[in-house]
Amino acid sequence: MKPSIPKGTRDFSPEIMAKRNYIFDTIKSVFNLYGYQPIETPAMENLSTLLGKYGDEGDKLLFKILNSGDYLAKTDKEDFDNINSFTNKISEKGLRYDLTVPFARYVVMNRNDIVFPFKRYQMQPVWRADRPQKGRYREFYQCDVDVIGSKTLHNEFEMILMINDVFNLLNLGITIKINNRKILSGIATYIGQEDKLIDITVAIDKIDKIGYDNVVNELLEKGISNDGIKKLTPILNLKGNSDEKLNTLEAILKDSTEGIAGIEELKFIFDLIEKHNKISNLRCELDLTLARGLSYYTGAIFEVKANDVSIGSICGGGRYDNLTSIFGLDDISGVGVSFGAERIYDVLTELNLFPQNNAESATVLILNLGEKEFEYCIPLANLLRSQGIKTEVYTGSGKMKKQMEYANKKKIPFVIIAGETEIEQNVVTIKNMTTGEQENMTFEGSWEYIEKNK
Amino acid sequence: MKPSIPKGTRDFSPEIMAKRNYIFDTIKSVFNLYGYQPIETPAMENLSTLLGKYGDEGDKLLFKILNSGDYLAKTDKEDFDNINSFTNKISEKGLRYDLTVPFARYVVMNRNDIVFPFKRYQMQPVWRADRPQKGRYREFYQCDVDVIGSKTLHNEFEMILMINDVFNLLNLGITIKINNRKILSGIATYIGQEDKLIDITVAIDKIDKIGYDNVVNELLEKGISNDGIKKLTPILNLKGNSDEKLNTLEAILKDSTEGIAGIEELKFIFDLIEKHNKISNLRCELDLTLARGLSYYTGAIFEVKANDVSIGSICGGGRYDNLTSIFGLDDISGVGVSFGAERIYDVLTELNLFPQNNAESATVLILNLGEKEFEYCIPLANLLRSQGIKTEVYTGSGKMKKQMEYANKKKIPFVIIAGETEIEQNVVTIKNMTTGEQENMTFEGSWEYIEKNK
Repeated sequence: MKPSIPKGTRDFSPEIMAKRNYIFDTIKSVFNLYGYQPIETPAMENLSTLLGKYGDEGDKLLFKILNSGDYLAKTDKEDFDNINSFTNKISEKGLRYDLTVPFARYVVMNRNDIVFPFKRYQMQPVWRADRPQKGRYREFYQCDVDVIGSKTLHNEFEMILMINDVFNLLNLGITIKINNRKILSGIATYIGQEDKLIDITVAIDKIDKIGYDNVVNELLEKGISNDGIKKLTPILNLKGNSDEKLNTLEAILKDSTEGIAGIEELKFIFDLIEKHNKISNLRCELDLTLARGLSYYTGAIFEVKANDVSIGSICGGGRYDNLTSIFGLDDISGVGVSFGAERIYDVLTELNLFPQNNAESATVLILNLGEKEFEYCIPLANLLRSQGIKTEVYTGSGKMKKQMEYANKKKIPFVIIAGETEIEQNVVTIKNMTTGEQENMTFEGSWEYIEKNK
Repeated sequence: MKPSIPKGTRDFSPEIMAKRNYIFDTIKSVFNLYGYQPIETPAMENLSTLLGKYGDEGDKLLFKILNSGDYLAKTDKEDFDNINSFTNKISEKGLRYDLTVPFARYVVMNRNDIVFPFKRYQMQPVWRADRPQKGRYREFYQCDVDVIGSKTLHNEFEMILMINDVFNLLNLGITIKINNRKILSGIATYIGQEDKLIDITVAIDKIDKIGYDNVVNELLEKGISNDGIKKLTPILNLKGNSDEKLNTLEAILKDSTEGIAGIEELKFIFDLIEKHNKISNLRCELDLTLARGLSYYTGAIFEVKANDVSIGSICGGGRYDNLTSIFGLDDISGVGVSFGAERIYDVLTELNLFPQNNAESATVLILNLGEKEFEYCIPLANLLRSQGIKTEVYTGSGKMKKQMEYANKKKIPFVIIAGETEIEQNVVTIKNMTTGEQENMTFEGSWEYIEKNK
């Protein structure tokens, strides 16, 4: 029997784990620095919590768990003819599909204990019964950070700072794109097509690629009136930097309370960023084509692109006013951002941005040349570890050559050798695997040497 | 609709996460110090990988995942009458039941890329459809560390060192109990009852509680012969420390090659520990009643008990020779240990051993007294964070009093206040929430103050 794993899932080797942990630890360190705190929720949720929260398509992509024991007892042969009612009777739990719905459930269940504004992050796997393909998995991690229970735009600003810090630490040049749901609504209302929000956004998105005439044709096909298109034209042709675009829009949308509110919000955020840029360099721009999460975002919408590589969004989020309403708790506004760890992994790989010394291997390997030699080295291993140096003792049965190969394959930078001669002289030989140099030294000396050269 | 979570599962709040992470991070730090490397495997495994590996009882406790799409298509109404064949047709995947079987699968699938001896650790949740009760959950973490592909007893010794280091770091007094499967086999053979290994072990276990006569009665009931019991008597009455017991056993089992081999192994390990105890204090003793995992352990068996609390084993493991045989790869011997994070959590709670300053809260809260004040503090927040100080800026809408309460509830030890007066003087007021003291200082000064007093 040849073992395998389910399609769309992955094992992570130590080499891959090291790189993944580099990403997760960096993100986590920034969240912690801003005072955000971790929570975790169960992998299994009641289906009543999950169903209906991700649209029909999402419902189909939920992994459902068979009830335990004699799960057929509650069914009869009639149920067998209707797969939906049958499924309801044999399955009550499903695997977490994202971290947003479980977070909303958590907030509602714990609202009396939570100190608002609640700043939390969550980094856990989610599962989707999607067709697996390159870069799309059935199990993958999400890294979400949210502040909930506060309406001030300082939160949006803070999210942008955190995004910027994370990618600075990862040495990755990025552009943060911002939009606002209220501006999109304002535009739709202004041209008399409140119901065509997404079609309009998609059209704006294509103007650079397919040109004005083709966009107009597409809009006509989608049922947008000639009058609407005429009014939309100056918006399609917006020029300048974010400030200039916002000013132009302000004039155009002057009669839309909602549109103006969205513009004011973005101006406030851009203003803070501009002042803050005296300290840190942050690239942030208005992008009217951003329409992610229009079903629940109510204010700012964020998306992050890596500058030097053509991979889609690596981070995104926005302001939502009604996240917890699905569980009966109204008027809790929040802002959240999700880091796409899998995509970030791909970008760092493509741009060769993972740190070299990152294999999670030991820093030093102590060879094992026999019983006496092994015992001689126990206090040395103890000393090095007490100083925080990752110290592996070879515990296989290989000869010295094989042990050196082991160090090489695992990219361990220092090797310590203690044979009969060294024991007699109360020293060890330390070999620097990078330079090839080797030298005799005392236990203390080898610690100092590694400390200095690692 | 009032949301809930499936029974036997838990949400972890920031407070609980801080404590759990304290345990996980400590364990991980020791694994890393010894050169062990992390891997991760998918939550879902093919049922063909899982079924039959945990006995009939285990098979029943697997959480099975419903196939995606029209999962009934492959069935017909006849299948409906036989739940097992029906289940096989509608479910091909299950949730990970432990980390051992997925590890064996991983080793077999990746045997050409792995550098042996392979020292790996794995910390991930597992799922069991067990009846939930106090301390028993349907989702819980396991923390496993294994070295595979090496027969030397140096590995057993290394496992003991790691166990000792972990609990030293957690400030928890423990006793490591050791047994050896070969000794148990030797005893069973010696008394002519090879098939009664577990009954004999259970009897030895009870001698202190119920006395010799009752043990004999129980053994008779289990079908052990009078002759066998007579031969077992000196073993039941073993006295002395581990060394003395091993010596007595050696004389008794002198004709059992296997028994003697087990005794030699333990003597070797105890000898290393004794020498090593000159450096570190380690409490380790022979315990012939240990019989955990007899279905797969082939040599040493470990179990760890906390000294000052009556909670069961908090860590255990042993030597196995045939772990990967279930997937067709023979002759790969290994040693592994599993830390019971949930039980360790309970012990640390009972003994009040969690560090005080462990809430994963920010170190300092900067109050937010208005737009001008907020902007004034941006460079300060930036400075503190760049120095690694966890700095939260209040971004709610509360008045000053509410903001101070927020700091209190979240146990944030320092609060920084900057109002109009402070801005004029280019300072901030820093309040030490522990002592109640407050003082004006510059941005740099507040950093130095927190650095010194945190």
